[in-house]
Amino acid sequence: MDSRTISVDLGERSYPIVIGAGLIADRFDLTPYLAGKRCLVVSSENVAPIYLESLQGCLEGVEVQAVTLPDGENHKTVATMTSILDELVSGKANRDTTVIALGGGVVGDIAGFAAACFMRGVAYIQIPTTLLAQVDSSVGGKTGVNHPGGKNLVGAFHQPRIVLIDTETLQTLPDRELRSGLAEVIKYGAIIDRDFFAWLESNMTALLDRDSLALAYAIGRSCEIKAEIVAADERETGRRALLNFGHTFGHAIEHCVGYGEWLHGEAVAAGMIMATAMSDIDQTEQNRLKALLSAAGLPCVPPKTGAAQLRDAMQMDKKAKAGKLHFVLLRSLGDAYVSSDYASAALDAALSVAES
Amino acid sequence: MDSRTISVDLGERSYPIVIGAGLIADRFDLTPYLAGKRCLVVSSENVAPIYLESLQGCLEGVEVQAVTLPDGENHKTVATMTSILDELVSGKANRDTTVIALGGGVVGDIAGFAAACFMRGVAYIQIPTTLLAQVDSSVGGKTGVNHPGGKNLVGAFHQPRIVLIDTETLQTLPDRELRSGLAEVIKYGAIIDRDFFAWLESNMTALLDRDSLALAYAIGRSCEIKAEIVAADERETGRRALLNFGHTFGHAIEHCVGYGEWLHGEAVAAGMIMATAMSDIDQTEQNRLKALLSAAGLPCVPPKTGAAQLRDAMQMDKKAKAGKLHFVLLRSLGDAYVSSDYASAALDAALSVAES
Repeated sequence: MDSRTISVDLGERSYPIVIGAGLIADRFDLTPYLAGKRCLVVSSENVAPIYLESLQGCLEGVEVQAVTLPDGENHKTVATMTSILDELVSGKANRDTTVIALGGGVVGDIAGFAAACFMRGVAYIQIPTTLLAQVDSSVGGKTGVNHPGGKNLVGAFHQPRIVLIDTETLQTLPDRELRSGLAEVIKYGAIIDRDFFAWLESNMTALLDRDSLALAYAIGRSCEIKAEIVAADERETGRRALLNFGHTFGHAIEHCVGYGEWLHGEAVAAGMIMATAMSDIDQTEQNRLKALLSAAGLPCVPPKTGAAQLRDAMQMDKKAKAGKLHFVLLRSLGDAYVSSDYASAALDAALSVAES
Repeated sequence: MDSRTISVDLGERSYPIVIGAGLIADRFDLTPYLAGKRCLVVSSENVAPIYLESLQGCLEGVEVQAVTLPDGENHKTVATMTSILDELVSGKANRDTTVIALGGGVVGDIAGFAAACFMRGVAYIQIPTTLLAQVDSSVGGKTGVNHPGGKNLVGAFHQPRIVLIDTETLQTLPDRELRSGLAEVIKYGAIIDRDFFAWLESNMTALLDRDSLALAYAIGRSCEIKAEIVAADERETGRRALLNFGHTFGHAIEHCVGYGEWLHGEAVAAGMIMATAMSDIDQTEQNRLKALLSAAGLPCVPPKTGAAQLRDAMQMDKKAKAGKLHFVLLRSLGDAYVSSDYASAALDAALSVAES
């Protein structure tokens, strides 16, 4: 089968991301990546009926236990994570058990956190089935759940043994979720790769048509960019912060409208435009970003939640370090930087678009 | 003030263990080890009334929030850990907040796990106030909570910034808990340091009399031994397993009689004798181990829970790798090794002492 492999280089925790169309149906052999001869597959109500059975073909000779989680960000809680631990215990899992996440970002985040915590860390494999999870959660080792006080406040860094990305899973993805994932893809171009940004401008129609080759290229390049950044800075102290472009505003939007009302990528799209408004980038470039997001069917303005509400939500955001907000701004397309040295009037202006 | 520092060498996660009498009352300055200007002190109902106020003297200019946990292993749960996360969120903690554990092993394990999970890891300081916590939890970065299915099944590796051991805290420790801690101290001599074992034989009376100098030496040497082993093998794949001497039997004993009925050190003491019975060690040496444990007021035989019950509990123990039980055995005092190559009759004989 045709596939492409990207290596995430993290010393002894390095792992491959394998990308291809039909990897699950073609019985890609996952067994070399298991810690032992048993696994727990964690999936969701939407995904399990479509792929769980065929996934068995990738796990020949392995004792497979499965658990299905309810769909939706509101189930991304400590309680759901604990229910996975209960499954592991009741199935007499041990240190050689591998946890396999089959689903979108929520499934991956919860299952990965359970794998991180069970016996202080067991092996973990990711099979992301949404574009957002494929280009975002595949790299970085971030796992976790939400707390009533904020998104992803509870979690761990836990690297998978392998990430398997079957682009066929995107054929059944709802349009709105595909577009949400494209927001993160566009982000990679905007922060660090001007050529990739231009490629996206030329290929947006093919991506929206779910052309396998275009998708594989966009996913691969996105993972590569994230992998390069993460390998250089595993613990998010420096360059890794660039990945938050659009996210300080975006998380605040999600918080204010309620998680799930706006999809993550939609909030990040509006957030990128808000951050761009604070940047010293010229108008032509700013318009190119707006045009590309619009072509992808993404919003360029936030919901009218009120500027003060967004500002409060950002203060609570975990990226707020010692009270001072940091933003990722753009010098030009493909050239981002972190700034805490912005005029407060610039932030006010960016927030003002959220006023009704 | 008189103090001794042992360095735990783990690359960028290295940290000091500072040991001395009266460090808290003498206002040892903890501020250089904080991530920022605020902290959450996690303590217990027994310990907080004695030390929480004086600890403020070690934290000048720091915003101190405190939470008090109920005492006892039965509160070492995901729910209690979550209650600490709730405190952090309600106190608007951020990435610069430091979690400080002030108490015994249970407090340290829960608080450390909360620190590991909050925002995927914030700074953590340990101030262990029991001998067991001082010689065991100070080194290794193990944190976690229990699950109905087994002890410490849920947790993380999370290294502290500093461990502060004030031997004065042992003056108020109940006798039985002091003796429980001595079991782990004796273990270090038995597995790896024959001279230290002999020193313990000569100084057991002073230790039981809570002589500050004797305690500081025993604690320091124990931490040094554990630090050497852990530095060489942070993830418990090889030599670190030696630290489990007496623990496979010990955990099974604790499981069968119910956690808290037998203290951890008491179960480990009986477990060490059971493991020694399976070893090719000569009788004189075996008698020296029994004599030293007895001098410390520790049990040398397990409770009569039944051999089959102990065996079942061991199978569930997380050290059981792919179904086959491993034991730490002794060639001689100060020379331990891991074995899965023992006669099943030897295991039967060791277990038989648990028959009524």
